[in-house]
Order: sequence, then C-alpha cells, then structure tokens
Amino acid sequence: MNQKLAVVLLSGGVDSSTTVAIAKSEGFEVCALSFDYGQRHKIELQAAANIAKYFEVKEHLVIKVPLRSIGGSALTADIAVPKDMPIQSIGQSIPVTYVPARNTIFLSLALAWAEVKEAQDIYIGVNAMDYSGYPDCRPEFIKAFETMANLATQKTIEGKMKFTIRCPLIEMSKSEIIKIGLKLGVNYSMTHSCYDPSDLGAACQVCESCLLRKKGFEDAGVLDPTKYK
Amino acid sequence: MNQKLAVVLLSGGVDSSTTVAIAKSEGFEVCALSFDYGQRHKIELQAAANIAKYFEVKEHLVIKVPLRSIGGSALTADIAVPKDMPIQSIGQSIPVTYVPARNTIFLSLALAWAEVKEAQDIYIGVNAMDYSGYPDCRPEFIKAFETMANLATQKTIEGKMKFTIRCPLIEMSKSEIIKIGLKLGVNYSMTHSCYDPSDLGAACQVCESCLLRKKGFEDAGVLDPTKYK
Repeated sequence: MNQKLAVVLLSGGVDSSTTVAIAKSEGFEVCALSFDYGQRHKIELQAAANIAKYFEVKEHLVIKVPLRSIGGSALTADIAVPKDMPIQSIGQSIPVTYVPARNTIFLSLALAWAEVKEAQDIYIGVNAMDYSGYPDCRPEFIKAFETMANLATQKTIEGKMKFTIRCPLIEMSKSEIIKIGLKLGVNYSMTHSCYDPSDLGAACQVCESCLLRKKGFEDAGVLDPTKYK
Repeated sequence: MNQKLAVVLLSGGVDSSTTVAIAKSEGFEVCALSFDYGQRHKIELQAAANIAKYFEVKEHLVIKVPLRSIGGSALTADIAVPKDMPIQSIGQSIPVTYVPARNTIFLSLALAWAEVKEAQDIYIGVNAMDYSGYPDCRPEFIKAFETMANLATQKTIEGKMKFTIRCPLIEMSKSEIIKIGLKLGVNYSMTHSCYDPSDLGAACQVCESCLLRKKGFEDAGVLDPTKYK
C-alpha cells in the first residue's frame, strides 16, 4: 500500500489546480488524472500539463473518453455555451453545460487507477458554493460514490484498501479557494477556466465559468492573471 | 421520458446476449452499449454487433475507453491469461483477469447515455453464481451503484427520472442462463466468451471463461455451437 500517494483529478482550472496544491500540502505524492473527453475547451489539457509539471507530480495520465458520442451537453455537443447571465442566477438551475454523469465517469476511472497504484485517496476539486449547480458536485453524491467504490474493487473487498474521496474545496467560496491556492503557491496564470475560448486560448469573459472565476478573483482582492479576449 | 427504452450493456458473450433477449422479452426497446477498452479478446465486439443486429436493437453504441493505459489486468495488460484451472477453483478468489473497476466504469458511461436517451432502466448481465468472483458482479455493488446513480444526474435530482439497474441473471447458474436464452431465441453461435482467442477467433477452451461456458452448456444438456481451436 502506498500510504502517501493520491490520485487527483486535474482539469487545469482554478479548483483542480488548487486541489493538487492542497493534496501536496497534506503530504501526498500526486498522480494527476486528466480527461480528453471531447470538451470544446480542450485547451485546458495544456493548462493541466503545465500545472502537473509545476507541482512536480509523480505521474500525469490523460485518458481519452469520447463523451461526444453520448452528447447531451453544451460542452461536448453542438449546443451554444450560454453567455452573460446574471451572476446571481448561476447555480439556481442546472445549465446546459452540465455533462451527463461526468464526475461519475471521471471518478470511476480515477478509482481504477487508484486501485492499480494502491492509492487510497482520491481528490476531486468539487465545490458546492460558487458553482454551476451540477448534481455531481454535491456532498451527498460524493458520499454515495465513496460507498459504492468500497464495494467495487478487488483490493477493497479483500480488505487491503479503503478508498476516501477527498473534496477539500466543497464548502469554500471561489475567493477562499483562490486565497488558499495563492498561499500554497498556485500560479493561476497557468490555469484555464473558460468554456468557450478563442482559438488562441483567450477566455471569453462571459460564460458562467469565466464569470465565476472573475468574481472569485474580485472577491479575493487579487488580480486575475488569465488572458482575456 | 421513454418508459420502454432500456440501455443494455452488451459485451457479446453468453450473459450479456441473453440479457438483451430478456430486456426485449420484458417489453423494452434496447439501446445496446459496448466497449472497446483494449481487451485482448476484442473480437467480442464483432459478436456484440451481430447480436445487436440479430435482436434489432434501436441503437448500438461502441465507446472506446483505453483501459490499457490504467493496466492492472490480464485482459488489458501483458499478463498471461491463466489456463486449465480446476473448474471448482473458479470464483474462489479473484483472478488476474479482473479489470480494475470495470463495471463501475461501464455502468457510469451507461448512466450518461441513459440520461441522454431518457431511459430509466439499465440492464447488466452480471451473475454471482457461475462467475469468476469479480467484486463488481455482486448484488451489494449493484445496489450501491444504483443509489449513487440516483444522486448523480440532472434528471434524477430534478425528479424527472429514477434509474433502476436490472440484473436478471444475478442468481442464475450458467446452465439456467443458457436455457432461458434458448427459449428467447438467442443464437449462441454468434456469441463469444474466450479471453484468449486465436487470431481467427477460435476459443482456447481452457481459460476460465471458456471453462465456465463449456460447463454451462454441458449442464444445460445442449451442444455449444462455439468455434473451438
């Protein structure tokens, strides 16, 4: 068993990059896991690679999962990304950027890799405060996934491992996340948030992800180093 | 909501092919889902396509999930498939053909597709009797997955859908499965079971999957129409 190894889901955004920093600060060596799932903001994978390198993770695995073939989301299908919604409306209902069962799929693949690596801890940067209202970012979902995970694998039913899904950001506001990340040395200029970036990777400023990021930096009283259109 | 549409996991083997037949006999239109996951017996995907066509499913989706990059199994990594074990030893401990978190990953993708298709029922041909002892074939795992699934998606938390994971074979012996399948018109010559087939697709006869299949047909008193080496 590798007591001090954790699998960390890393999209390359503010939350997951901060989660890598937190896992490291909690004494874990990090196996970072990213997904090339047909997202329109595939450029986030470059951010993930940069963050993985910056934090000297032990391993960075990118798994290709063609969620476009399943569809049903503005992030993977030909549905427009909503723009310029009032900030207070975000999280009130589930937006079209919801990707069906995305965190379930990502955590399942993380579980498989964690079993192979004998890493009992899986970190995910979900957040139930300043978020888009996605169902698979809520504590009750995470708890149910953890219960299932501990019935799903060889090493858990043989009593050799017990998985814990760690969500250090779950009760933090975006500004709190940014403040903690800055203390832990996250270089936010490396991170990418925008759902609908330009070909050169500049953020649109007006999708829900840009708006939440912007508000987070403003509330934290810190300049956002991202590249905007 | 599509009351009479079900997503059915279809590998192309005896169990999943019988499950398609059962889902149809229970009045469902079938969306069949198969996975190209780097399995060494990739030839089963041809069997899956044939069965899907034979049963005139509404749709057959094959998703590519590169589980070889995760490794940890004789089915996806360079570990030899065990041969010629005593039949009574099968299921006593978990063999090296176990693929880490495979059913969790497959069911997660099925869940995503089921949400998009508005199919509340997901069939999986797991079996806890004549089986290899895989943890993710047990009723307690399936139950925990179902609980998690109903917390994971937009349409469940909005109260528009409730998922049921159906495992019609879970308490059947292999011979019972075959007898029911024959009654429902399954053409078992189309199905593929062997973990380590020849290049031409002939079954090895001596891996655990061949042995379980063989015993099932013998116990059912039926000739196995598969092509053996």
